[in-house]
Amino acid sequence: MNELREMVSSHPDMRGSGMQELIACVEECGRCALACLACADACLSEEGVESLVQCIRLDLDCADLCFAAASVGLRRSEGNVPVLVAAISACALACERCADECERHAAHHDHCRLCAESCRRCLAACEAVLDELAA
Amino acid sequence: MNELREMVSSHPDMRGSGMQELIACVEECGRCALACLACADACLSEEGVESLVQCIRLDLDCADLCFAAASVGLRRSEGNVPVLVAAISACALACERCADECERHAAHHDHCRLCAESCRRCLAACEAVLDELAA
Amino acid sequence: MNELREMVSSHPDMRGSGMQELIACVEECGRCALACLACADACLSEEGVESLVQCIRLDLDCADLCFAAASVGLRRSEGNVPVLVAAISACALACERCADECERHAAHHDHCRLCAESCRRCLAACEAVLDELAA
Amino acid sequence: MNELREMVSSHPDMRGSGMQELIACVEECGRCALACLACADACLSEEGVESLVQCIRLDLDCADLCFAAASVGLRRSEGNVPVLVAAISACALACERCADECERHAAHHDHCRLCAESCRRCLAACEAVLDELAA
Repeated sequence: MNELREMVSSHPDMRGSGMQELIACVEECGRCALACLACADACLSEEGVESLVQCIRLDLDCADLCFAAASVGLRRSEGNVPVLVAAISACALACERCADECERHAAHHDHCRLCAESCRRCLAACEAVLDELAA
Repeated sequence: MNELREMVSSHPDMRGSGMQELIACVEECGRCALACLACADACLSEEGVESLVQCIRLDLDCADLCFAAASVGLRRSEGNVPVLVAAISACALACERCADECERHAAHHDHCRLCAESCRRCLAACEAVLDELAA
Repeated sequence: MNELREMVSSHPDMRGSGMQELIACVEECGRCALACLACADACLSEEGVESLVQCIRLDLDCADLCFAAASVGLRRSEGNVPVLVAAISACALACERCADECERHAAHHDHCRLCAESCRRCLAACEAVLDELAA
Repeated sequence: MNELREMVSSHPDMRGSGMQELIACVEECGRCALACLACADACLSEEGVESLVQCIRLDLDCADLCFAAASVGLRRSEGNVPVLVAAISACALACERCADECERHAAHHDHCRLCAESCRRCLAACEAVLDELAA
Protein backbone atom coordinates (compact mmCIF):
# COMPACT_ATOMS: atom_id res chain seq x y z
CA MET A 1 0.00 0.00 0.00
CA ASN A 2 1.53 3.32 -0.96
CA GLU A 3 1.72 6.36 1.27
CA LEU A 4 -1.29 8.39 0.14
CA ARG A 5 -3.44 5.27 0.10
CA GLU A 6 -2.34 4.42 3.63
CA MET A 7 -2.99 7.98 4.77
CA VAL A 8 -6.45 8.17 3.31
CA SER A 9 -7.30 4.80 4.84
CA SER A 10 -6.69 6.41 8.25
CA HIS A 11 -9.22 9.18 7.48
CA PRO A 12 -12.32 8.63 9.65
CA ASP A 13 -14.72 9.16 6.73
CA MET A 14 -12.80 7.85 3.74
CA ARG A 15 -14.26 4.44 3.20
CA GLY A 16 -16.56 2.72 0.83
CA SER A 17 -16.84 2.23 -2.85
CA GLY A 18 -14.95 4.44 -5.22
CA MET A 19 -12.15 5.28 -2.80
CA GLN A 20 -9.49 3.24 -4.64
CA GLU A 21 -10.33 4.97 -7.90
CA LEU A 22 -10.42 8.40 -6.26
CA ILE A 23 -7.01 8.06 -4.61
CA ALA A 24 -5.46 6.79 -7.86
CA CYS A 25 -7.02 9.79 -9.61
CA VAL A 26 -5.65 12.27 -7.06
CA GLU A 27 -2.17 10.81 -7.51
CA GLU A 28 -2.38 11.03 -11.29
CA CYS A 29 -3.64 14.62 -11.00
CA GLY A 30 -0.62 15.52 -8.88
CA ARG A 31 1.79 13.90 -11.33
CA CYS A 32 0.06 15.35 -14.39
CA ALA A 33 0.12 18.88 -12.97
CA LEU A 34 3.90 18.66 -12.57
CA ALA A 35 4.30 17.14 -16.05
CA CYS A 36 2.28 19.98 -17.58
CA LEU A 37 4.27 22.67 -15.77
CA ALA A 38 7.51 21.01 -16.90
CA CYS A 39 6.29 20.79 -20.50
CA ALA A 40 5.15 24.43 -20.53
CA ASP A 41 8.54 25.59 -19.37
CA ALA A 42 10.41 23.35 -21.80
CA CYS A 43 8.24 24.71 -24.64
CA LEU A 44 9.23 28.25 -23.62
CA SER A 45 12.89 27.29 -24.16
CA GLU A 46 12.39 25.72 -27.59
CA GLU A 47 13.36 27.44 -30.79
CA GLY A 48 10.14 28.18 -32.53
CA VAL A 49 8.29 28.89 -29.29
CA GLU A 50 5.71 30.80 -31.35
CA SER A 51 4.46 27.47 -32.70
CA LEU A 52 4.04 26.13 -29.16
CA VAL A 53 1.92 28.92 -27.68
CA GLN A 54 -1.30 26.91 -27.72
CA CYS A 55 0.57 23.99 -26.13
CA ILE A 56 1.87 26.22 -23.32
CA ARG A 57 -1.63 27.56 -22.62
CA LEU A 58 -3.22 24.13 -22.52
CA ASP A 59 -0.38 22.87 -20.29
CA LEU A 60 -1.05 25.70 -17.83
CA ASP A 61 -4.83 25.22 -17.91
CA CYS A 62 -4.34 21.51 -17.33
CA ALA A 63 -1.94 22.06 -14.42
CA ASP A 64 -4.38 24.45 -12.71
CA LEU A 65 -7.33 22.10 -13.10
CA CYS A 66 -5.29 19.04 -12.03
CA PHE A 67 -4.20 20.76 -8.81
CA ALA A 68 -7.79 21.86 -8.11
CA ALA A 69 -9.21 18.37 -8.81
CA ALA A 70 -6.60 16.75 -6.56
CA SER A 71 -7.36 19.20 -3.75
CA VAL A 72 -11.13 18.75 -4.00
CA GLY A 73 -10.67 14.98 -4.36
CA LEU A 74 -8.92 14.80 -1.01
CA ARG A 75 -11.80 16.52 0.81
CA ARG A 76 -14.61 14.46 2.20
CA SER A 77 -17.46 16.98 1.99
CA GLU A 78 -20.51 14.97 2.94
CA GLY A 79 -22.96 14.75 0.13
CA ASN A 80 -20.98 17.16 -2.01
CA VAL A 81 -20.50 14.73 -4.87
CA PRO A 82 -21.67 17.21 -7.55
CA VAL A 83 -18.74 19.59 -6.89
CA LEU A 84 -16.31 16.65 -7.01
CA VAL A 85 -17.84 15.47 -10.29
CA ALA A 86 -17.59 18.96 -11.78
CA ALA A 87 -13.95 19.40 -10.66
CA ILE A 88 -12.90 16.01 -12.07
CA SER A 89 -14.88 16.56 -15.28
CA ALA A 90 -13.13 19.88 -15.88
CA CYS A 91 -9.78 18.22 -15.19
CA ALA A 92 -10.56 15.34 -17.57
CA LEU A 93 -11.48 17.73 -20.38
CA ALA A 94 -8.32 19.79 -19.86
CA CYS A 95 -6.22 16.59 -19.89
CA GLU A 96 -7.82 15.47 -23.15
CA ARG A 97 -7.26 18.81 -24.89
CA CYS A 98 -3.70 19.08 -23.61
CA ALA A 99 -2.92 15.51 -24.74
CA ASP A 100 -4.35 16.21 -28.20
CA GLU A 101 -2.16 19.29 -28.59
CA CYS A 102 1.00 17.75 -27.10
CA GLU A 103 0.66 14.75 -29.42
CA ARG A 104 0.93 17.10 -32.39
CA HIS A 105 4.46 17.99 -31.18
CA ALA A 106 5.44 14.58 -29.80
CA ALA A 107 7.64 13.64 -32.74
CA HIS A 108 9.79 16.72 -32.22
CA HIS A 109 9.78 17.22 -28.47
CA ASP A 110 10.14 14.45 -25.90
CA HIS A 111 8.60 16.66 -23.22
CA CYS A 112 5.42 16.92 -25.30
CA ARG A 113 5.35 13.16 -25.88
CA LEU A 114 5.76 12.45 -22.17
CA CYS A 115 3.27 15.13 -21.16
CA ALA A 116 0.68 13.67 -23.53
CA GLU A 117 1.19 10.25 -21.95
CA SER A 118 0.73 11.73 -18.47
CA CYS A 119 -2.44 13.55 -19.56
CA ARG A 120 -3.89 10.34 -21.07
CA ARG A 121 -3.22 8.43 -17.83
CA CYS A 122 -4.81 11.22 -15.78
CA LEU A 123 -7.81 11.33 -18.13
CA ALA A 124 -8.33 7.58 -17.69
CA ALA A 125 -8.08 7.91 -13.90
CA CYS A 126 -10.62 10.75 -13.92
CA GLU A 127 -13.00 8.71 -16.08
CA ALA A 128 -12.73 5.75 -13.70
CA VAL A 129 -13.86 7.99 -10.83
CA LEU A 130 -16.68 9.49 -12.85
CA ASP A 131 -17.87 5.99 -13.83
CA GLU A 132 -17.75 4.88 -10.20
CA LEU A 133 -19.64 7.96 -8.96
CA ALA A 134 -22.30 7.51 -11.62
CA ALA A 135 -22.79 3.83 -10.77
CA MET B 1 -11.49 51.45 -16.39
CA ASN B 2 -9.97 49.39 -13.65
CA GLU B 3 -6.55 47.82 -13.77
CA LEU B 4 -7.29 44.25 -14.83
CA ARG B 5 -9.72 45.50 -17.45
CA GLU B 6 -7.10 47.88 -18.81
CA MET B 7 -4.49 45.12 -18.81
CA VAL B 8 -6.65 42.62 -20.62
CA SER B 9 -7.58 45.28 -23.18
CA SER B 10 -3.87 45.45 -24.08
CA HIS B 11 -3.79 41.68 -24.75
CA PRO B 12 -3.42 41.10 -28.49
CA ASP B 13 -6.16 38.46 -28.59
CA MET B 14 -8.57 39.56 -25.89
CA ARG B 15 -11.31 41.28 -27.80
CA GLY B 16 -14.83 40.62 -28.81
CA SER B 17 -18.03 39.68 -27.15
CA GLY B 18 -18.03 38.22 -23.71
CA MET B 19 -14.81 39.85 -22.58
CA GLN B 20 -16.45 42.30 -20.16
CA GLU B 21 -18.31 39.46 -18.48
CA LEU B 22 -15.22 37.28 -18.37
CA ILE B 23 -13.01 39.91 -16.74
CA ALA B 24 -15.70 40.71 -14.17
CA CYS B 25 -15.93 36.97 -13.45
CA VAL B 26 -12.15 36.61 -13.02
CA GLU B 27 -12.17 39.50 -10.54
CA GLU B 28 -15.04 38.00 -8.56
CA CYS B 29 -13.28 34.62 -8.54
CA GLY B 30 -10.16 36.24 -7.10
CA ARG B 31 -12.16 38.03 -4.39
CA CYS B 32 -14.29 34.99 -3.60
CA ALA B 33 -11.24 32.73 -3.21
CA LEU B 34 -9.82 35.09 -0.57
CA ALA B 35 -13.21 35.39 1.16
CA CYS B 36 -13.52 31.60 1.35
CA LEU B 37 -9.99 31.18 2.74
CA ALA B 38 -10.71 33.87 5.34
CA CYS B 39 -14.02 32.23 6.29
CA ALA B 40 -12.43 28.77 6.59
CA ASP B 41 -9.79 30.08 8.94
CA ALA B 42 -12.27 32.08 11.01
CA CYS B 43 -14.44 28.94 11.32
CA LEU B 44 -11.40 27.06 12.66
CA SER B 45 -11.14 29.62 15.47
CA GLU B 46 -14.82 29.49 16.48
CA GLU B 47 -16.03 27.68 19.55
CA GLY B 48 -18.02 24.78 18.26
CA VAL B 49 -15.75 24.26 15.26
CA GLU B 50 -17.13 20.71 15.01
CA SER B 51 -20.42 22.18 13.73
CA LEU B 52 -18.54 24.12 11.02
CA VAL B 53 -16.57 21.27 9.46
CA GLN B 54 -18.73 21.07 6.36
CA CYS B 55 -18.50 24.87 6.00
CA ILE B 56 -14.68 24.72 6.17
CA ARG B 57 -14.55 21.99 3.51
CA LEU B 58 -16.86 23.82 1.14
CA ASP B 59 -14.90 27.05 1.70
CA LEU B 60 -11.67 25.27 0.73
CA ASP B 61 -13.23 23.55 -2.31
CA CYS B 62 -14.64 26.88 -3.42
CA ALA B 63 -11.30 28.69 -2.99
CA ASP B 64 -9.49 26.04 -5.06
CA LEU B 65 -12.04 26.13 -7.87
CA CYS B 66 -12.21 29.96 -7.85
CA PHE B 67 -8.42 30.25 -8.25
CA ALA B 68 -8.46 27.66 -11.05
CA ALA B 69 -11.35 29.36 -12.86
CA ALA B 70 -9.64 32.77 -12.59
CA SER B 71 -6.40 31.34 -13.96
CA VAL B 72 -8.07 29.55 -16.88
CA GLY B 73 -10.25 32.61 -17.51
CA LEU B 74 -7.18 34.78 -18.06
CA ARG B 75 -5.78 32.44 -20.74
CA ARG B 76 -6.77 32.96 -24.33
CA SER B 77 -6.48 29.38 -25.62
CA GLU B 78 -7.85 29.60 -29.15
CA GLY B 79 -10.91 27.53 -29.58
CA ASN B 80 -10.62 26.07 -26.11
CA VAL B 81 -13.98 27.31 -24.90
CA PRO B 82 -15.09 23.89 -23.55
CA VAL B 83 -12.33 23.85 -20.91
CA LEU B 84 -13.22 27.41 -19.89
CA VAL B 85 -16.91 26.46 -19.64
CA ALA B 86 -16.05 23.40 -17.51
CA ALA B 87 -13.78 25.41 -15.19
CA ILE B 88 -16.36 28.16 -14.68
CA SER B 89 -19.20 25.65 -14.26
CA ALA B 90 -17.28 23.83 -11.53
CA CYS B 91 -16.56 27.15 -9.84
CA ALA B 92 -20.22 28.21 -10.06
CA LEU B 93 -21.38 24.97 -8.47
CA ALA B 94 -18.83 25.26 -5.65
CA CYS B 95 -19.92 28.87 -5.04
CA GLU B 96 -23.56 27.85 -4.83
CA ARG B 97 -22.92 25.01 -2.38
CA CYS B 98 -20.62 27.14 -0.26
CA ALA B 99 -23.16 29.98 -0.17
CA ASP B 100 -25.93 27.55 0.86
CA GLU B 101 -23.83 26.23 3.73
CA CYS B 102 -22.50 29.63 4.87
CA GLU B 103 -26.03 31.03 4.94
CA ARG B 104 -26.95 28.41 7.54
CA HIS B 105 -24.38 30.03 9.87
CA ALA B 106 -24.85 33.64 8.77
CA ALA B 107 -26.90 34.65 11.79
CA HIS B 108 -24.12 33.59 14.14
CA HIS B 109 -20.95 34.41 12.23
CA ASP B 110 -20.37 37.55 10.22
CA HIS B 111 -17.60 35.83 8.26
CA CYS B 112 -20.11 33.23 7.04
CA ARG B 113 -22.61 35.93 6.11
CA LEU B 114 -20.01 37.90 4.15
CA CYS B 115 -18.60 34.78 2.53
CA ALA B 116 -22.06 33.73 1.36
CA GLU B 117 -22.53 37.18 -0.19
CA SER B 118 -19.19 36.89 -1.99
CA CYS B 119 -20.07 33.40 -3.26
CA ARG B 120 -23.45 34.62 -4.57
CA ARG B 121 -21.78 37.49 -6.45
CA CYS B 122 -19.20 35.10 -7.90
CA LEU B 123 -21.93 32.65 -8.90
CA ALA B 124 -23.81 35.42 -10.72
CA ALA B 125 -20.62 36.50 -12.51
CA CYS B 126 -19.92 32.90 -13.57
CA GLU B 127 -23.47 32.50 -14.85
CA ALA B 128 -23.14 35.71 -16.89
CA VAL B 129 -20.07 34.27 -18.63
CA LEU B 130 -21.75 30.92 -19.23
CA ASP B 131 -24.80 32.69 -20.71
CA GLU B 132 -22.55 34.76 -22.97
CA LEU B 133 -20.54 31.75 -24.14
CA ALA B 134 -23.73 29.79 -24.86
CA ALA B 135 -25.20 32.67 -26.88
CA MET C 1 -14.45 49.19 5.45
CA ASN C 2 -14.13 46.88 2.48
CA GLU C 3 -15.32 43.30 2.38
CA LEU C 4 -12.18 41.34 3.20
CA ARG C 5 -11.34 43.79 5.99
CA GLU C 6 -14.82 43.39 7.44
CA MET C 7 -14.60 39.61 7.15
CA VAL C 8 -11.24 39.36 8.84
CA SER C 9 -12.47 41.67 11.61
CA SER C 10 -15.09 38.99 12.41
CA HIS C 11 -12.38 36.32 12.79
CA PRO C 12 -12.10 35.41 16.49
CA ASP C 13 -8.29 35.61 16.48
CA MET C 14 -7.54 38.32 13.93
CA ARG C 15 -6.85 41.33 16.03
CA GLY C 16 -3.94 43.37 17.11
CA SER C 17 -1.10 45.18 15.49
CA GLY C 18 -0.16 44.48 11.95
CA MET C 19 -3.58 43.29 10.85
CA GLN C 20 -4.32 46.33 8.67
CA GLU C 21 -1.04 45.88 6.83
CA LEU C 22 -1.55 42.15 6.48
CA ILE C 23 -5.04 42.45 4.98
CA ALA C 24 -3.86 45.13 2.55
CA CYS C 25 -1.00 42.82 1.59
CA VAL C 26 -3.32 39.86 1.01
CA GLU C 27 -5.51 42.00 -1.25
CA GLU C 28 -2.51 43.22 -3.25
CA CYS C 29 -1.24 39.65 -3.57
CA GLY C 30 -4.60 38.56 -4.99
CA ARG C 31 -4.63 41.43 -7.48
CA CYS C 32 -0.98 40.99 -8.43
CA ALA C 33 -1.42 37.26 -9.08
CA LEU C 34 -4.19 38.02 -11.58
CA ALA C 35 -2.16 40.82 -13.18
CA CYS C 36 0.81 38.48 -13.63
CA LEU C 37 -1.31 35.72 -15.16
CA ALA C 38 -2.88 38.26 -17.54
CA CYS C 39 0.54 39.63 -18.50
CA ALA C 40 1.97 36.15 -19.10
CA ASP C 41 -0.86 35.28 -21.44
CA ALA C 42 -0.69 38.60 -23.27
CA CYS C 43 3.07 38.07 -23.74
CA LEU C 44 2.34 34.67 -25.31
CA SER C 45 0.20 36.42 -27.93
CA GLU C 46 2.76 39.09 -28.83
CA GLU C 47 4.82 38.97 -31.98
CA GLY C 48 8.33 38.38 -30.83
CA VAL C 49 7.25 36.14 -27.96
CA GLU C 50 10.80 34.72 -27.93
CA SER C 51 11.99 38.04 -26.45
CA LEU C 52 9.39 37.77 -23.65
CA VAL C 53 10.18 34.28 -22.38
CA GLN C 54 11.89 35.50 -19.23
CA CYS C 55 8.98 37.89 -18.59
CA ILE C 56 6.49 35.01 -18.89
CA ARG C 57 8.47 32.87 -16.45
CA LEU C 58 8.78 35.63 -13.88
CA ASP C 59 5.07 36.42 -14.26
CA LEU C 60 4.20 32.80 -13.53
CA ASP C 61 6.61 32.55 -10.58
CA CYS C 62 5.16 35.77 -9.18
CA ALA C 63 1.57 34.58 -9.59
CA ASP C 64 2.32 31.30 -7.77
CA LEU C 65 4.08 33.03 -4.88
CA CYS C 66 1.41 35.76 -4.61
CA PHE C 67 -1.37 33.15 -4.32
CA ALA C 68 0.63 31.22 -1.72
CA ALA C 69 1.41 34.36 0.31
CA ALA C 70 -2.25 35.44 0.22
CA SER C 71 -3.37 32.00 1.39
CA VAL C 72 -0.83 31.80 4.22
CA GLY C 73 -1.56 35.43 5.14
CA LEU C 74 -5.22 34.61 5.75
CA ARG C 75 -4.39 31.82 8.20
CA ARG C 76 -4.00 32.61 11.85
CA SER C 77 -1.53 29.88 12.85
CA GLU C 78 -0.63 30.76 16.43
CA GLY C 79 2.98 31.56 16.81
CA ASN C 80 3.74 30.62 13.23
CA VAL C 81 5.10 34.00 12.24
CA PRO C 82 8.31 32.59 10.69
CA VAL C 83 6.36 30.74 7.96
CA LEU C 84 4.35 33.88 7.23
CA VAL C 85 7.54 35.94 7.03
CA ALA C 86 9.12 33.41 4.66
CA ALA C 87 6.04 33.28 2.41
CA ILE C 88 5.78 37.06 2.19
CA SER C 89 9.52 37.46 1.68
CA ALA C 90 9.46 35.01 -1.24
CA CYS C 91 6.49 36.87 -2.70
CA ALA C 92 8.22 40.24 -2.29
CA LEU C 93 11.33 39.01 -4.09
CA ALA C 94 9.28 37.55 -6.95
CA CYS C 95 7.38 40.84 -7.26
CA GLU C 96 10.61 42.81 -7.43
CA ARG C 97 12.16 40.59 -10.10
CA CYS C 98 8.97 40.52 -12.14
CA ALA C 99 8.62 44.31 -11.94
CA ASP C 100 12.25 44.76 -13.05
CA GLU C 101 11.69 42.55 -16.09
CA CYS C 102 8.26 43.96 -17.00
CA GLU C 103 9.65 47.50 -16.86
CA ARG C 104 12.11 46.57 -19.61
CA HIS C 105 9.10 45.97 -21.89
CA ALA C 106 6.82 48.69 -20.53
CA ALA C 107 7.38 51.09 -23.41
CA HIS C 108 6.18 48.51 -25.92
CA HIS C 109 3.49 46.62 -24.05
CA ASP C 110 0.85 48.16 -21.84
CA HIS C 111 0.28 44.84 -20.09
CA CYS C 112 3.93 44.83 -18.98
CA ARG C 113 3.69 48.43 -17.78
CA LEU C 114 0.54 47.70 -15.78
CA CYS C 115 1.91 44.43 -14.43
CA ALA C 116 5.08 46.18 -13.24
CA GLU C 117 2.92 48.75 -11.42
CA SER C 118 0.92 45.99 -9.75
CA CYS C 119 4.11 44.17 -8.72
CA ARG C 120 5.57 47.38 -7.21
CA ARG C 121 2.39 47.96 -5.19
CA CYS C 122 2.42 44.35 -3.98
CA LEU C 123 6.11 44.60 -3.08
CA ALA C 124 5.41 47.72 -1.00
CA ALA C 125 2.51 46.00 0.76
CA CYS C 126 4.70 42.97 1.52
CA GLU C 127 7.44 45.20 2.90
CA ALA C 128 4.95 47.00 5.15
CA VAL C 129 3.96 43.64 6.68
CA LEU C 130 7.58 42.55 7.09
CA ASP C 131 8.40 45.87 8.79
CA GLU C 132 5.45 45.48 11.13
CA LEU C 133 6.30 41.87 12.00
CA ALA C 134 9.93 42.81 12.67
CA ALA C 135 8.90 45.71 14.95
CA MET D 1 14.69 7.04 -15.03
CA ASN D 2 11.27 8.11 -13.88
CA GLU D 3 8.87 10.22 -15.87
CA LEU D 4 9.46 13.71 -14.51
CA ARG D 5 13.21 13.16 -14.61
CA GLU D 6 12.97 12.04 -18.23
CA MET D 7 10.78 15.01 -19.10
CA VAL D 8 13.05 17.57 -17.51
CA SER D 9 16.04 15.98 -19.25
CA SER D 10 14.34 16.89 -22.56
CA HIS D 11 14.08 20.56 -21.53
CA PRO D 12 16.52 22.61 -23.63
CA ASP D 13 17.86 24.53 -20.61
CA MET D 14 17.60 22.02 -17.77
CA ARG D 15 21.10 20.71 -17.45
CA GLY D 16 24.00 21.02 -15.13
CA SER D 17 24.65 20.66 -11.49
CA GLY D 18 21.83 20.62 -9.04
CA MET D 19 19.22 19.32 -11.45
CA GLN D 20 18.95 15.85 -9.84
CA GLU D 21 18.38 17.41 -6.44
CA LEU D 22 15.89 19.91 -7.83
CA ILE D 23 13.75 17.31 -9.60
CA ALA D 24 13.73 15.09 -6.51
CA CYS D 25 12.66 18.14 -4.49
CA VAL D 26 9.84 19.00 -6.90
CA GLU D 27 8.53 15.43 -6.67
CA GLU D 28 8.64 15.47 -2.87
CA CYS D 29 6.87 18.84 -2.85
CA GLY D 30 4.09 17.40 -5.00
CA ARG D 31 3.70 14.37 -2.75
CA CYS D 32 3.93 16.40 0.47
CA ALA D 33 1.25 18.85 -0.70
CA LEU D 34 -1.18 15.97 -1.23
CA ALA D 35 -0.23 14.38 2.10
CA CYS D 36 -0.88 17.69 3.91
CA LEU D 37 -4.25 18.18 2.24
CA ALA D 38 -5.21 14.60 3.13
CA CYS D 39 -4.11 15.09 6.74
CA ALA D 40 -5.98 18.39 7.08
CA ASP D 41 -9.19 16.79 5.91
CA ALA D 42 -8.77 13.73 8.09
CA CYS D 43 -8.17 16.03 11.09
CA LEU D 44 -11.47 17.78 10.30
CA SER D 45 -13.25 14.42 10.65
CA GLU D 46 -11.66 13.47 13.97
CA GLU D 47 -13.47 13.68 17.26
CA GLY D 48 -11.76 16.42 19.15
CA VAL D 49 -11.11 18.47 16.03
CA GLU D 50 -10.70 21.51 18.30
CA SER D 51 -7.36 20.08 19.45
CA LEU D 52 -6.20 19.73 15.84
CA VAL D 53 -6.84 23.29 14.63
CA GLN D 54 -3.18 24.25 14.62
CA CYS D 55 -2.36 21.02 12.77
CA ILE D 56 -4.97 21.80 10.10
CA ARG D 57 -3.59 25.31 9.60
CA LEU D 58 0.00 24.15 9.31
CA ASP D 59 -1.09 21.39 6.90
CA LEU D 60 -2.77 23.97 4.67
CA ASP D 61 0.16 26.41 4.84
CA CYS D 62 2.52 23.56 3.97
CA ALA D 63 0.38 22.40 1.03
CA ASP D 64 0.25 25.93 -0.42
CA LEU D 65 3.99 26.46 -0.10
CA CYS D 66 4.80 22.97 -1.46
CA PHE D 67 2.69 23.58 -4.58
CA ALA D 68 4.32 26.99 -5.08
CA ALA D 69 7.85 25.62 -4.60
CA ALA D 70 7.18 22.76 -7.05
CA SER D 71 5.84 25.19 -9.63
CA VAL D 72 8.75 27.63 -9.30
CA GLY D 73 11.20 24.71 -9.22
CA LEU D 74 10.02 23.55 -12.64
CA ARG D 75 10.66 26.95 -14.24
CA ARG D 76 14.04 27.71 -15.68
CA SER D 77 14.15 31.49 -15.19
CA GLU D 78 17.68 32.42 -16.18
CA GLY D 79 19.57 33.90 -13.35
CA ASN D 80 16.54 33.90 -11.10
CA VAL D 81 18.09 31.69 -8.44
CA PRO D 82 17.16 34.03 -5.54
CA VAL D 83 13.41 33.55 -6.12
CA LEU D 84 13.90 29.77 -6.29
CA VAL D 85 15.91 29.85 -3.06
CA ALA D 86 13.21 31.93 -1.34
CA ALA D 87 10.40 29.64 -2.52
CA ILE D 88 12.20 26.49 -1.41
CA SER D 89 13.25 28.06 1.90
CA ALA D 90 9.65 28.99 2.68
CA CYS D 91 8.55 25.46 1.78
CA ALA D 92 11.27 23.91 3.95
CA LEU D 93 10.24 26.00 6.95
CA ALA D 94 6.56 25.12 6.48
CA CYS D 95 7.47 21.42 6.23
CA GLU D 96 9.47 21.59 9.43
CA ARG D 97 6.72 23.32 11.41
CA CYS D 98 4.05 21.00 10.04
CA ALA D 99 6.16 17.92 10.86
CA ASP D 100 6.74 19.19 14.42
CA GLU D 101 3.01 19.65 14.96
CA CYS D 102 1.93 16.40 13.27
CA GLU D 103 4.42 14.46 15.38
CA ARG D 104 2.61 15.64 18.50
CA HIS D 105 -0.47 13.75 17.25
CA ALA D 106 1.31 10.82 15.58
CA ALA D 107 0.58 8.36 18.38
CA HIS D 108 -3.17 8.93 18.01
CA HIS D 109 -3.63 9.53 14.31
CA ASP D 110 -1.93 7.58 11.54
CA HIS D 111 -2.58 10.40 9.09
CA CYS D 112 -0.55 12.75 11.28
CA ARG D 113 2.28 10.21 11.57
CA LEU D 114 2.40 9.69 7.82
CA CYS D 115 2.11 13.39 7.09
CA ALA D 116 5.01 14.14 9.42
CA GLU D 117 7.12 11.55 7.58
CA SER D 118 6.25 13.13 4.25
CA CYS D 119 7.11 16.61 5.55
CA ARG D 120 10.49 15.38 6.87
CA ARG D 121 11.33 13.84 3.49
CA CYS D 122 10.32 17.03 1.70
CA LEU D 123 12.35 19.13 4.14
CA ALA D 124 15.42 16.99 3.43
CA ALA D 125 14.89 17.31 -0.32
CA CYS D 126 14.55 21.11 -0.01
CA GLU D 127 17.74 21.30 2.07
CA ALA D 128 19.63 19.26 -0.54
CA VAL D 129 18.66 21.81 -3.20
CA LEU D 130 19.56 24.75 -0.98
CA ASP D 131 22.96 23.17 -0.23
CA GLU D 132 23.58 22.59 -3.94
CA LEU D 133 22.58 26.15 -4.88
CA ALA D 134 24.81 27.61 -2.16
CA ALA D 135 27.79 25.51 -3.28
